Amino acid sequence: MNKQKLIQQIKIKKSFLCIGLDVDLEKIPQHLLDFDDPIFEFNKQIIDATHDLAVAYKPNTAFYEAYGINGWKSLKKTIDYINNNYPDIFTIADAKRGDIGNTSTRYAKAFFEDMNFDSITVAPYMGSDSVEPFLAFADKFTILLALTSNVGGLDFQVLKDENGNTLYEKVIQQSLSWKNSDQLMYVIGATRPEYFKRIRKIIPDSFLLVPGIGAQGGSLQEVCKYGLNKDIGLLINSSRGIIYASSRNDFALKAKEKALELQKEMEMYFL
Amino acid sequence: MNKQKLIQQIKIKKSFLCIGLDVDLEKIPQHLLDFDDPIFEFNKQIIDATHDLAVAYKPNTAFYEAYGINGWKSLKKTIDYINNNYPDIFTIADAKRGDIGNTSTRYAKAFFEDMNFDSITVAPYMGSDSVEPFLAFADKFTILLALTSNVGGLDFQVLKDENGNTLYEKVIQQSLSWKNSDQLMYVIGATRPEYFKRIRKIIPDSFLLVPGIGAQGGSLQEVCKYGLNKDIGLLINSSRGIIYASSRNDFALKAKEKALELQKEMEMYFL
Repeated sequence: MNKQKLIQQIKIKKSFLCIGLDVDLEKIPQHLLDFDDPIFEFNKQIIDATHDLAVAYKPNTAFYEAYGINGWKSLKKTIDYINNNYPDIFTIADAKRGDIGNTSTRYAKAFFEDMNFDSITVAPYMGSDSVEPFLAFADKFTILLALTSNVGGLDFQVLKDENGNTLYEKVIQQSLSWKNSDQLMYVIGATRPEYFKRIRKIIPDSFLLVPGIGAQGGSLQEVCKYGLNKDIGLLINSSRGIIYASSRNDFALKAKEKALELQKEMEMYFL
Repeated sequence: MNKQKLIQQIKIKKSFLCIGLDVDLEKIPQHLLDFDDPIFEFNKQIIDATHDLAVAYKPNTAFYEAYGINGWKSLKKTIDYINNNYPDIFTIADAKRGDIGNTSTRYAKAFFEDMNFDSITVAPYMGSDSVEPFLAFADKFTILLALTSNVGGLDFQVLKDENGNTLYEKVIQQSLSWKNSDQLMYVIGATRPEYFKRIRKIIPDSFLLVPGIGAQGGSLQEVCKYGLNKDIGLLINSSRGIIYASSRNDFALKAKEKALELQKEMEMYFL
């Protein structure tokens, strides 16, 4: 998917909601455990119930890998299901990969070719040649970790260099010089609203993937205040707040209600 | 495996060689493609030929993920084969994972429980709460990226803060305060021998996993000069230089010869 199509979908749906598919067999409704592939069945029902309210889905690969080969199969079925049934949806492999050049190319093939995701999250610690291999794939996006929502995000990301620039700012600034940098997006945690203003000065036009709304305490309103740009430019993720809204038979309906609440909040930014 | 047993194996074998199992179907001998699982067959023959010369094997997960579910199966078969046949070998999932707390726990389960690796490589960018979940597993090791061997490793890792400390030094220093930090090891690239002296001042007793010998240009002698400690304290990785020593039927024999060359070089540090 290219950026224009993503922007178009956001405008059509009046939504910039991303739903995180972080599936935990201990949290899903127990009746689903009778299915051959409970994880896929859970995702399928969540997706069917929410696809007109969200523009993106983001499975976190850790939740699938934890179940070994079966988990990997559930992930593949999930991405295939989205691509086959809802081709207008933007898909994010939240995989936080990154390695030396020839190895990053392998990860890119895994997620962009074998799985056919539109994008992947990538860690910046290993620098330019660990990220550029992902950027070499046309119409695929690399979502670079910049300022993450967790407590430990402050351990290194806001360290200041001799000139007073923080590490996350250096990461963003340097990334702009990388080949095909127009295919970059950035992870900025919703728990850091005070940083969005600074970030928008460096990357006014880039899309930001924003986790941390809901369970982690981030505020949609605060993020929008400083983070929105002319194209919206935000993908606000909610995982647990939506997919575990109910642990009963009505889980998909309740997920839809939660997604609708967020979409309604978002709708007012399209006036 | 605990650290004492690893040190004991190093002394018995007079080797601190780690062999990287980065399997590329385009590079392995073509007759192996007739096997049901060519990747596993390649690994099996390499392992059978070299297990008495190496103390560790390190499959890089990217090379397996690139082949989708089949690649994941080959990885599982490989780790099971090592654990069942050579239980004294230290195994490293070179996965470079790391995410917020509950998610890192999932990755830890994937590699420490489902796969039963002894250790995993982890990226530090997201800070303490992205690494500590890995450290919570007894007798398992977390190998933190500190100073990597690739060109881009210098983009951020050697940035200096206001006090003149580089990022990689801050990563190492801070990591020492994390819970169960005695289960940490560190990735330090062989292409950076000039840094080993400084690093050994901060972590004199820790094991360092050192990639970058051979194809990437690092020197074993240089690394040993500053990196060795009383327990050896190094795991020197070679991947392509060993496993692709020949692309013919004799690949396992040639791999053994290359491994033996390195082991012989290492042997003199045990006098």
